[in-house]
Amino acid sequence: MTELKQRVLFKGPRLYEGKAKIVFSVVDDSDLVWIQFKDSMTAFNAQKKEEMRDKGRLNKQISQLIFRYLEEQAKVPTAWVSSVSDTEIIMQKVKIIPLEVICRNRVAGSLAKRFGLAEGEVLKQPLIEICLKDDLLGDPLMTPQEAVVLGFADEVDLQEIFAMARVLNERLSHLFTKIGFILVDFKVEFGRNNAGQLVLADEISPDCTRLWDVQTHEKFDKDRFRRDLGGVIESYQEVLNRLTKELK
Amino acid sequence: MTELKQRVLFKGPRLYEGKAKIVFSVVDDSDLVWIQFKDSMTAFNAQKKEEMRDKGRLNKQISQLIFRYLEEQAKVPTAWVSSVSDTEIIMQKVKIIPLEVICRNRVAGSLAKRFGLAEGEVLKQPLIEICLKDDLLGDPLMTPQEAVVLGFADEVDLQEIFAMARVLNERLSHLFTKIGFILVDFKVEFGRNNAGQLVLADEISPDCTRLWDVQTHEKFDKDRFRRDLGGVIESYQEVLNRLTKELK
Repeated sequence: MTELKQRVLFKGPRLYEGKAKIVFSVVDDSDLVWIQFKDSMTAFNAQKKEEMRDKGRLNKQISQLIFRYLEEQAKVPTAWVSSVSDTEIIMQKVKIIPLEVICRNRVAGSLAKRFGLAEGEVLKQPLIEICLKDDLLGDPLMTPQEAVVLGFADEVDLQEIFAMARVLNERLSHLFTKIGFILVDFKVEFGRNNAGQLVLADEISPDCTRLWDVQTHEKFDKDRFRRDLGGVIESYQEVLNRLTKELK
Repeated sequence: MTELKQRVLFKGPRLYEGKAKIVFSVVDDSDLVWIQFKDSMTAFNAQKKEEMRDKGRLNKQISQLIFRYLEEQAKVPTAWVSSVSDTEIIMQKVKIIPLEVICRNRVAGSLAKRFGLAEGEVLKQPLIEICLKDDLLGDPLMTPQEAVVLGFADEVDLQEIFAMARVLNERLSHLFTKIGFILVDFKVEFGRNNAGQLVLADEISPDCTRLWDVQTHEKFDKDRFRRDLGGVIESYQEVLNRLTKELK
């Protein structure tokens, strides 16, 4: 979408405010949305909440670097379009598929809790889980068969999503390994753009990935906030620093 | 196992006591176990508990009629061997596969709760779910991929179990329709006997099925106990009466 470089875009009315981002329309362009990253940090379905200065900027910059890498180098189609400020981006307007798609390379978080397993164990193959994106229900886990039979996704979408999630996991694992992180797990969302193409949407940041330093296994992600480990912003900054060094 | 008719079996030491049954060994026969149905009624992972006179006998009789029907008429392999008293049976000793296999024809129970759906809605195709059989963890739901990757079941077992569950659901739905019940859902367990054959184990009773009268949608199952609807034993007796009339 290089033509955007010659265009001035205007922020339209607010469409939707989520826990970490606000989505605005773009004046006179129904193919685009204007997304503002907030400084709000939330966990446990927003039961734990804090404002953190710089958090919106860091997540915007991290997500931008990763989406650009995926789009330009890793050949994963994304909704990424352009940056408009330190905390704002333009993305393709997509119809979000209401699934949280979770890829896991090691046991951690809800998987560890559900099965009483130790965190850190390497899975013999990556696990892909889907949850219904529904805050009121607490984003419940579902089987692929449930997603189809209950009408939350159709079978074709689901196969495409699983295939894309597998590729995404490979490419992201490769990227994070290069900058000294273990990609323990991550959560992504997909949508269909106005052209009908399935693309990666939402964001990829330490809010929705687990990143452990490859040497020390120190956490550089939202678990620092969830578990009151301190140094949240410093960790996010370090993720940005390493990504910037690798990708700029 | 017709030879059992000519043999006298002796109850051996107690091997295991569950919430609804006690399992004993059989003296001098390591291929068999002696199972005693208890009068204990439990729900919500045994947080709700009550002794109910006659409950063990009713479940034993109901389960016996259904297992015999499956074995002899519906060609579903089971661990069923023989009856020894009003509340006791002999079954093949099996290595239980630690999964609770749930088949659903309509929305009810935990599925309704998890997705905020109304009970009673007919599913456009039967759903099969598996949960890890682990009381301490609350029998967590898992995806088939999780079962394999985490080592709770191997892929061959799982495929065989899903295929058998589908057939079982067809045969049981047919049986219950004939006696005026809707088979809303049910939970079963499978095991491998000493010959290595996958067989239906445990029990099939109103403790682990949801049965609604086809006309009135009145419940004839453990939901009467879970939801304090009263008439638990009377409902189980009615299930036994209708099954006896059909199968004897």
